[in-house]
Amino acid sequence: MENDLKYMRFLDYFSLEGKFDELVGIALFGLGRAGTIQLQNLLSCVRSQVCYVVEESQERLRVVEDKYKHKIPNAKFVRVTHISSLLKDPSVRAVIVCTPTFSHKDIVCKALAAGKHVFCEKPVAETNEDVRECYNTAKAHNVKLFCAFNRRYDPGLRSIKNKVLKGELGDVYLIKTTSRDSPIPSIEYLRSSGGIFHDCAVHDIDAVCWLMGEKPIRVQVFGSLLSPPLKELEGRDFDTVTISFQFASGKLALIDLSRNACYGYDQRCEVFGSKGMLENLNNRPNGIQQQTYNATKQDPILYSFPSRYQESYQIELQYFLDLVVGNAKEEVLQEDVLAVTRIASACEKSAKEGIVVNLDW
Amino acid sequence: MENDLKYMRFLDYFSLEGKFDELVGIALFGLGRAGTIQLQNLLSCVRSQVCYVVEESQERLRVVEDKYKHKIPNAKFVRVTHISSLLKDPSVRAVIVCTPTFSHKDIVCKALAAGKHVFCEKPVAETNEDVRECYNTAKAHNVKLFCAFNRRYDPGLRSIKNKVLKGELGDVYLIKTTSRDSPIPSIEYLRSSGGIFHDCAVHDIDAVCWLMGEKPIRVQVFGSLLSPPLKELEGRDFDTVTISFQFASGKLALIDLSRNACYGYDQRCEVFGSKGMLENLNNRPNGIQQQTYNATKQDPILYSFPSRYQESYQIELQYFLDLVVGNAKEEVLQEDVLAVTRIASACEKSAKEGIVVNLDW
Amino acid sequence: MENDLKYMRFLDYFSLEGKFDELVGIALFGLGRAGTIQLQNLLSCVRSQVCYVVEESQERLRVVEDKYKHKIPNAKFVRVTHISSLLKDPSVRAVIVCTPTFSHKDIVCKALAAGKHVFCEKPVAETNEDVRECYNTAKAHNVKLFCAFNRRYDPGLRSIKNKVLKGELGDVYLIKTTSRDSPIPSIEYLRSSGGIFHDCAVHDIDAVCWLMGEKPIRVQVFGSLLSPPLKELEGRDFDTVTISFQFASGKLALIDLSRNACYGYDQRCEVFGSKGMLENLNNRPNGIQQQTYNATKQDPILYSFPSRYQESYQIELQYFLDLVVGNAKEEVLQEDVLAVTRIASACEKSAKEGIVVNLDW
Amino acid sequence: MENDLKYMRFLDYFSLEGKFDELVGIALFGLGRAGTIQLQNLLSCVRSQVCYVVEESQERLRVVEDKYKHKIPNAKFVRVTHISSLLKDPSVRAVIVCTPTFSHKDIVCKALAAGKHVFCEKPVAETNEDVRECYNTAKAHNVKLFCAFNRRYDPGLRSIKNKVLKGELGDVYLIKTTSRDSPIPSIEYLRSSGGIFHDCAVHDIDAVCWLMGEKPIRVQVFGSLLSPPLKELEGRDFDTVTISFQFASGKLALIDLSRNACYGYDQRCEVFGSKGMLENLNNRPNGIQQQTYNATKQDPILYSFPSRYQESYQIELQYFLDLVVGNAKEEVLQEDVLAVTRIASACEKSAKEGIVVNLDW
Repeated sequence: MENDLKYMRFLDYFSLEGKFDELVGIALFGLGRAGTIQLQNLLSCVRSQVCYVVEESQERLRVVEDKYKHKIPNAKFVRVTHISSLLKDPSVRAVIVCTPTFSHKDIVCKALAAGKHVFCEKPVAETNEDVRECYNTAKAHNVKLFCAFNRRYDPGLRSIKNKVLKGELGDVYLIKTTSRDSPIPSIEYLRSSGGIFHDCAVHDIDAVCWLMGEKPIRVQVFGSLLSPPLKELEGRDFDTVTISFQFASGKLALIDLSRNACYGYDQRCEVFGSKGMLENLNNRPNGIQQQTYNATKQDPILYSFPSRYQESYQIELQYFLDLVVGNAKEEVLQEDVLAVTRIASACEKSAKEGIVVNLDW
Repeated sequence: MENDLKYMRFLDYFSLEGKFDELVGIALFGLGRAGTIQLQNLLSCVRSQVCYVVEESQERLRVVEDKYKHKIPNAKFVRVTHISSLLKDPSVRAVIVCTPTFSHKDIVCKALAAGKHVFCEKPVAETNEDVRECYNTAKAHNVKLFCAFNRRYDPGLRSIKNKVLKGELGDVYLIKTTSRDSPIPSIEYLRSSGGIFHDCAVHDIDAVCWLMGEKPIRVQVFGSLLSPPLKELEGRDFDTVTISFQFASGKLALIDLSRNACYGYDQRCEVFGSKGMLENLNNRPNGIQQQTYNATKQDPILYSFPSRYQESYQIELQYFLDLVVGNAKEEVLQEDVLAVTRIASACEKSAKEGIVVNLDW
Repeated sequence: MENDLKYMRFLDYFSLEGKFDELVGIALFGLGRAGTIQLQNLLSCVRSQVCYVVEESQERLRVVEDKYKHKIPNAKFVRVTHISSLLKDPSVRAVIVCTPTFSHKDIVCKALAAGKHVFCEKPVAETNEDVRECYNTAKAHNVKLFCAFNRRYDPGLRSIKNKVLKGELGDVYLIKTTSRDSPIPSIEYLRSSGGIFHDCAVHDIDAVCWLMGEKPIRVQVFGSLLSPPLKELEGRDFDTVTISFQFASGKLALIDLSRNACYGYDQRCEVFGSKGMLENLNNRPNGIQQQTYNATKQDPILYSFPSRYQESYQIELQYFLDLVVGNAKEEVLQEDVLAVTRIASACEKSAKEGIVVNLDW
Repeated sequence: MENDLKYMRFLDYFSLEGKFDELVGIALFGLGRAGTIQLQNLLSCVRSQVCYVVEESQERLRVVEDKYKHKIPNAKFVRVTHISSLLKDPSVRAVIVCTPTFSHKDIVCKALAAGKHVFCEKPVAETNEDVRECYNTAKAHNVKLFCAFNRRYDPGLRSIKNKVLKGELGDVYLIKTTSRDSPIPSIEYLRSSGGIFHDCAVHDIDAVCWLMGEKPIRVQVFGSLLSPPLKELEGRDFDTVTISFQFASGKLALIDLSRNACYGYDQRCEVFGSKGMLENLNNRPNGIQQQTYNATKQDPILYSFPSRYQESYQIELQYFLDLVVGNAKEEVLQEDVLAVTRIASACEKSAKEGIVVNLDW
């Protein structure tokens, strides 16, 4: 029963004792894909209240206000220029940042300096120096900065982590992850994405290091550009890469990434140890199985991240609210965030120079 | 992609053109398990607005108001005695009835007579005569009465229905459904439940008739009471039954029901035809697979109806709103509702008298 | 490891100590489908030696002799008329009977009377009186008569039986089996098959009674003829039937049968009890899974009985040899064989008369 | 139906027209694990006749003769010293070599020089020079030398190869294989095994190159020794390795190997391309699924190679017989065999020196 998280949440809704202790007022920045997911989840989250919805595009802001205003009648829909005044509003206890990467550092630091807890989509900032500044600001103002590596809140991956910690796998020998995007990103997006390592691989790198409880000391990568529609990126980026890690303990990891799988959003993880193996297999939209003369068929795996990680986003939001009210301890640490960036850069170097890159920690 | 309904809903949230045409004001009656599910779903449903939350128990009403008031600040939390005044409120366009069965008819008829569309958890009323009166009232006031057979909105079952209609199975020969409840209901509940046929079997009977597009002309049932904790019901109810149908076309159906499966809420359906077979298999909480020396293991299937049919409840609500604004045609007809009750009574008679019962239509 | 029966057999072949104690000389009667399977299995079975291959058709006998003679150079290929002389040959210790049903009783009784152990494909004889005579002959000559209900030797079904006996399911409440034939039998075969109950249902009836450890006291059946190519059998036989059993203990069973599933040989069994559920799912020819834009696909389930029950036939043969040399106790008893026939006849009566049939034991 | 290879073989046994054109006389060398598997398969293979069984150990030879003599009464059981005389026997058309690696070259060359076709377990010889001499001998005497990479005859892997050739995957981007041995080999075996690359990785390297239709130009490997019972091999061998390949086309491959998986013989392959993905998943001993309060369970995957590759060995033998009688073309070429060895050596160098190794072809 306790693995059926949807049922556990129902029990929580239904309970007579479920009254939250503290209602958390939220300002949400950014109404792109991630921001829309957060807004939708905030509507049904009884522990929170949306105070401000902030978006740079006037047009997008108006559309969202039209659509959502009646669900959050006390919320204000404003542009980013209102940041100073809204950060003075004491009803805002936390800020969720889903704006484009270049704007993260400014919003994050201002919010932290105003004493607001911050949830920020990865990466927290564009350079490690800026990331450090963000964390220093959080520390100085005694508030939390949460970098949203949302896969850590995937029920499957979390279950693997818990089983590893409980020793169900014995000694871990090898971790493998596969991440293949769906649908194929636009060439415009890819041109400014920062490259496959900093844009995509960071999620897998974080997951692998988190599960392993170690950081790799040797990194090797092969990268290729194989998909015809992406050929113009040749020499600047890859669409298919294999990443190999060796850890100080001798343990190993393999990651493979692709910018596009036509059959859906392929997200798998496997941990192999002395007492067995755990796999987080792809999720499916329903339990239909069709048998015909030619084949046994199921519907394709989930198509993209909003459906595949729907539950992760919801659980991550609950975790952040627990962090805000002091009911949870920090799980994504500054050192994790910095390490992931450093490893991603090592991957890029290995792929471009054709060498094994060593890392000291 | 179109089978990934969660992703399709995301596209709808995210779309710039997603603005609903008509906002539907809702009065929700009843805050038990079904009512809580509806309330939680209404929070995030941008096409609707909760105007009233109605509950008989003062204590339950206060708890829910405390917990939910800030999410629906314009809603009123009232007791059922306020029904007349709230039905006069023009902001209420539809009523959702999740109260105990004995109170359905009164609320449903008053709401319909006041020109409100009605969503009512099954059964619409306690007797077929009362059911007919409800539908007559709906017709007289030109509003919709929707009997919420929520399994019809399960993505898996709906997919089977669509594939059958498209002819993917050829001629249908046999339909089988399995429904085993989890957790075991309390003996108090069972004493007043109306019996396994009218309380449980109606869902499977409706599903089978809907999928088959026919009503059975011969019904046979074996019933037993096998679970020790339920032994006091001996002679009054069964906890395990098998139901067999033969249709005028010669097609066949088998249903098996149990009041309790320890391994989770077992809900399966299978349709066998000349061109193949479709199964709606049990749903699981995650994609974890663990391999050990002794076994390959997955977490148990979903534990109970709030998780298993979570998506059905959401889709059913959208369907009802479409019905209210005139974008959908009636799917659960008066004749369906009456037929299900009649078949359930025939099942009961067959089990008690040990005979095959014939039905004329 | 012990569930990997193929590996356990390899260990047995490979073992230095694997030398059989007693070599069993065999006369094989009949070279149809069942006989061919037995012959092929006997070739690689080191505990046995084929002494005679017996077949009525001179043409078939010559073809088989041509093809197999060099693999069993000491075997004689003869017609049934040689039965008396070959039964005098002391090198023959056991007889395997795979001839048409009408000839069973004569061969079986002669072989038993000559002191040979007998393996006979079901049914042992055409009438219950003849079946009793066969068993009496076996008893009189102190030899074994084994009626080959080969599904009992299916590794999956056997595993269920063992788990039920060990109490892993707690109290058994319900057993369900599905048997759908593939490919569709010829109309010529069906005209003389004895009908779906005596030809097909007997396997499921035996399996259900064996697993339950009880015989049903109430039987109800609906039967239809739905497949267009079989329409000429209307009024004489059914191609789709549902069978319901109630046992004295109140336990229940459901069987559904079809003469044809286009998607392969559908053979499933499910046992539901107070501590869980066991399913014997369909077997597949390989582990291939293909993911495309439209579907996730596997190859169809096994096509027909020679592949689906290949392993059962091999294990059944080993069991019979154990029975012959005194290393196993009788598992398919005379009373089982007689009961199955009686229940099949009750099924036929229920289907034809539209009534529930009671059975006393 | 055509994917159900067991059924297709049954049709072949049963057919009236199945008479083989040419019976192939066989001398089998070696009665270890591989030789025992071959012997057992030869018993039931009607196209072949075992003329000689050859084994160095007198004791093992006697045991096998005792156990098998009556199944192949015309075969002679002799020691390797009899090689010259048996190779003069014209009834021997082909030789199957399953002896220890060090003896391969001598037996293979003598047999080829005597005009016998040769089936040899990998590797054909200990050095590439000796391998070339073997192939030159075959060419000089116009007979076939078949190096038994048996995974190519696994029905799953063969199905992937065929689908790739038919273009069902579009352009192939990435191939991944996993091979984890079970049970753990003895330390005695490992000391003289030639190391994980030449002993194990060769199978995966051959499979990857065969599926890709290319040979890698860049190879990178991380190797570790992680299993406590194997610690004495530290510095001499690895028990866990990851292998990465980049091909001239830019395509990529990942292989991971382990000397021991406690949960069974883990053998998986995955091919990812522009039109989808194909996986060859692990095979299971039966179709049992058990649902309990705590988990849904299946029996573990197949335990070791004799069960997992049972069907591959049978199909490989049929292929070799087709090769002998001229009904098949050569599939495992001299250049494949030499390339695999060269790539395995490059892997070893990469692991030991911590560098990416480039290969010219």
